[in-house]
Amino acid sequence: MAVTLEELARILGGRLDGPAPGPAISGIASIAEAGPGQITFLAGVKNVQKHLGELAATRAAAVIAADQAGPLPLPAIRFPAPYQGFLAALTFFHPAEPLVPGIHPTAFVHEEAVVDPAAMIGPLAVVEAAAVIGPRARLDAQVFVGRGARVGAGSRLYPQVVLREGCTVGEHSIIHSGTVLGSDGFGYHSTAAGHDKIPQVGIVEIGDRVEIGANVTIDRATMGKTRVGDGTKIDNLVHLAHNVQVGRDCIIVAQVGVSGSTVLEDRVTLAGQAGTVGHVTVGRGTTVAARGVVTHDVPPGQLVSGFPLKPHAEEKRIMMALRKLPELIKTVRHLEQELDRLRKNDE
Amino acid sequence: MAVTLEELARILGGRLDGPAPGPAISGIASIAEAGPGQITFLAGVKNVQKHLGELAATRAAAVIAADQAGPLPLPAIRFPAPYQGFLAALTFFHPAEPLVPGIHPTAFVHEEAVVDPAAMIGPLAVVEAAAVIGPRARLDAQVFVGRGARVGAGSRLYPQVVLREGCTVGEHSIIHSGTVLGSDGFGYHSTAAGHDKIPQVGIVEIGDRVEIGANVTIDRATMGKTRVGDGTKIDNLVHLAHNVQVGRDCIIVAQVGVSGSTVLEDRVTLAGQAGTVGHVTVGRGTTVAARGVVTHDVPPGQLVSGFPLKPHAEEKRIMMALRKLPELIKTVRHLEQELDRLRKNDE
Amino acid sequence: MAVTLEELARILGGRLDGPAPGPAISGIASIAEAGPGQITFLAGVKNVQKHLGELAATRAAAVIAADQAGPLPLPAIRFPAPYQGFLAALTFFHPAEPLVPGIHPTAFVHEEAVVDPAAMIGPLAVVEAAAVIGPRARLDAQVFVGRGARVGAGSRLYPQVVLREGCTVGEHSIIHSGTVLGSDGFGYHSTAAGHDKIPQVGIVEIGDRVEIGANVTIDRATMGKTRVGDGTKIDNLVHLAHNVQVGRDCIIVAQVGVSGSTVLEDRVTLAGQAGTVGHVTVGRGTTVAARGVVTHDVPPGQLVSGFPLKPHAEEKRIMMALRKLPELIKTVRHLEQELDRLRKNDE
Repeated sequence: MAVTLEELARILGGRLDGPAPGPAISGIASIAEAGPGQITFLAGVKNVQKHLGELAATRAAAVIAADQAGPLPLPAIRFPAPYQGFLAALTFFHPAEPLVPGIHPTAFVHEEAVVDPAAMIGPLAVVEAAAVIGPRARLDAQVFVGRGARVGAGSRLYPQVVLREGCTVGEHSIIHSGTVLGSDGFGYHSTAAGHDKIPQVGIVEIGDRVEIGANVTIDRATMGKTRVGDGTKIDNLVHLAHNVQVGRDCIIVAQVGVSGSTVLEDRVTLAGQAGTVGHVTVGRGTTVAARGVVTHDVPPGQLVSGFPLKPHAEEKRIMMALRKLPELIKTVRHLEQELDRLRKNDE
Repeated sequence: MAVTLEELARILGGRLDGPAPGPAISGIASIAEAGPGQITFLAGVKNVQKHLGELAATRAAAVIAADQAGPLPLPAIRFPAPYQGFLAALTFFHPAEPLVPGIHPTAFVHEEAVVDPAAMIGPLAVVEAAAVIGPRARLDAQVFVGRGARVGAGSRLYPQVVLREGCTVGEHSIIHSGTVLGSDGFGYHSTAAGHDKIPQVGIVEIGDRVEIGANVTIDRATMGKTRVGDGTKIDNLVHLAHNVQVGRDCIIVAQVGVSGSTVLEDRVTLAGQAGTVGHVTVGRGTTVAARGVVTHDVPPGQLVSGFPLKPHAEEKRIMMALRKLPELIKTVRHLEQELDRLRKNDE
Repeated sequence: MAVTLEELARILGGRLDGPAPGPAISGIASIAEAGPGQITFLAGVKNVQKHLGELAATRAAAVIAADQAGPLPLPAIRFPAPYQGFLAALTFFHPAEPLVPGIHPTAFVHEEAVVDPAAMIGPLAVVEAAAVIGPRARLDAQVFVGRGARVGAGSRLYPQVVLREGCTVGEHSIIHSGTVLGSDGFGYHSTAAGHDKIPQVGIVEIGDRVEIGANVTIDRATMGKTRVGDGTKIDNLVHLAHNVQVGRDCIIVAQVGVSGSTVLEDRVTLAGQAGTVGHVTVGRGTTVAARGVVTHDVPPGQLVSGFPLKPHAEEKRIMMALRKLPELIKTVRHLEQELDRLRKNDE
């Protein structure tokens, strides 16, 4: 689909700035990779200087930029908030595959499952008894939805997602391939004789507008619910243990592990490969830096890191100091000798 | 299913302590979440004081507690070991789905596979030639069992487990969704020309009463067997490399990585996100704390942590000391100046 | 299949050294596990002394060894480069299952997909519209190949691999079970109102002779391509974020996480559980030790470790020094007292 720059500005709701009608635009790409028939994107206004050179060299026909970005070396479509234009352009040039309602003939849908006529069930998917699939929900190929599980309106489960029995996904949420929702929590009663399994009879409840990456594991609660709040985004290979409570609009980056019954309040961020012990609370808006381990409750609005967990500024001071430690040991040994000499002189 | 407190005490094999017939009990829940028709649970005897307030406030009709737990503010079913009653109640109110023997019509079972008539094969599962599925074994939807692999009596593979060719799972073991048993070990012979794959021709052998979480990966041996011993429990997203030998009744917590040919003796515990180098042995009953990395052999019965690995007590001392390091550097600089002054006075 | 030692030497292209015709050889195993009818393997020449005892005790009928390995206590097949003989023997005694071209009747292959007649599509696999499967490519049971994705000649996707729409795998590459190629990158535009998803419209491009382990996740690019170069080998549970660029012949060990837009030049090694921040470059041939976190660009040919990243030698010095820190604090306290005393004497 190719449009003139003028048409594109109108479609995206931006302001054309530069010669028009420009060449036909047929796609969007990065400043470095864009070709003559493509538009590119300049984020924000701070980094304009940094990118002016690249923009002068780009083969792109035009750029999406901020109103405040100043003069640019090529035609632009301007926006007060350029990301709005960028997202609109990505969607315009790459429209989502249309959802074609219906159940693929190779899927197995139990006769007692309830699938909305406006839902789409892909090839070789399985929907067990008493499961409920909402309108415009999409289960891709080879998805598994267990007995009595629920998928809300407009949510998408990518190929090979597993949603275990009784668990629920809200509306307009996205679950990526290989993710398992509702596996048993890791709970045993250990004695000298061994480890007796504690039946895990709770569920997992995923809110609305949640996105969960690939090969994530979220365990069902021992009793009650493991919860992920509305608007929260979870990256790949994350582990949430049984009875974890995640608030709204949290960000959990790849390979994070959250231990049992831990509470993340709204808008918490856990950076990559971070972890938590069990039964602690991370306060609203707090950020745990990469590799940090939450070893105790953290109040709201903090920036913390390290293991054991510390204020990020302190952790950084310690890391700086560490590089001086080998030298420091020599210095102290030297001081001891000096002091000895002085003591002797004193006598 | 609702029963009187009196009936429940008899069913669970506990001692009724309090007014009976109590109200009808229809479920079990935590002290905080239990409703009027439910029973709750008080673990152990140490934490009774801590929980008395919550117990006074609970809406539960009764509590499962220890004989020795002292007087409680609501009717109780008493047990010498309260966990026994708790597990029994969980099972009574949440009976496992009955196993319905037979092969689902949508499953593909190779004509040369041997499936016990008392086994259950779910929708769209695959069982390849010469595989053997034992009595009362259960393969859920979309499970894959490769050529010549074996699943023992009473074991359950949850949806989308992969058991590669020739690998074996013992009796009464549980494998959760997304877990891969028998992927090739990571073995190459590297030269200037690149990395030549070393064929991985061994297998994975899982013992009896083992439980393995979701999205775990256990690689087949280069030659011989990668082994997981009877009664061992493994959490989600754990990686066991080729030729790893795990003993009996070990506990391996989420996101642990164990490198090639490492040996974990019986009853070893690896806490969350721990790791090991290859070709080391962790002695019987040793515990590696969270994030610890086993960098050398560890004798039996130790508590170790850190990277490089240390006795846990030493690691804690060092972590405490670290917080004083920035201050220490200033102190030493000050001492140097002091000493200079003194020296000058001396001359 | 049993052959005389003489025949085996000829088949493997080695030099027979010892009594012949030896006993019939029917397999290969490790020095410790080999039985009377098997041959074993002695790598290299450095460790000969170390293994002479084991070799004297082995039940193996013969050993594959280096020409330069010196006299051995049992018959040998000698090679200038013994690994060549070891790999040949593994392949001879464990030939790969023959590829039987054709589409399994239970697979779903879209009528607009292009499957080479010499390719093999396993039970319950899914190949969507416009996908292209090359000659002698093998898709095992329950594999998913999305719309317009491509699998090159001779590549194998093990059971339950997911290759998302538009992504490509080159020739003679191996992808293990549970791995997801082309899941959406973790990209949002965050405001006070929440996190708006940035459509991820790029792809993943896997080169030739690449091997990727089990339950790995590689995200598609926001725009453009996430790339893995020819000959690179990736272990289990690794995460590569959107727009990551991995060069040729890299080694990425289990549970590593690579953040967005990071570049690994050719022959980079990331050891187990290492990580990187985003938008950094690791130079050609550099090795990041286990658990290291790449926090900035690294030049070629380095050995680095720790978090923040340091030269490995420095990190080791610091780790040694750390164990002296608690003692050091006491020493300094003592020095302060000494100095005080001296000062008083001075006055």
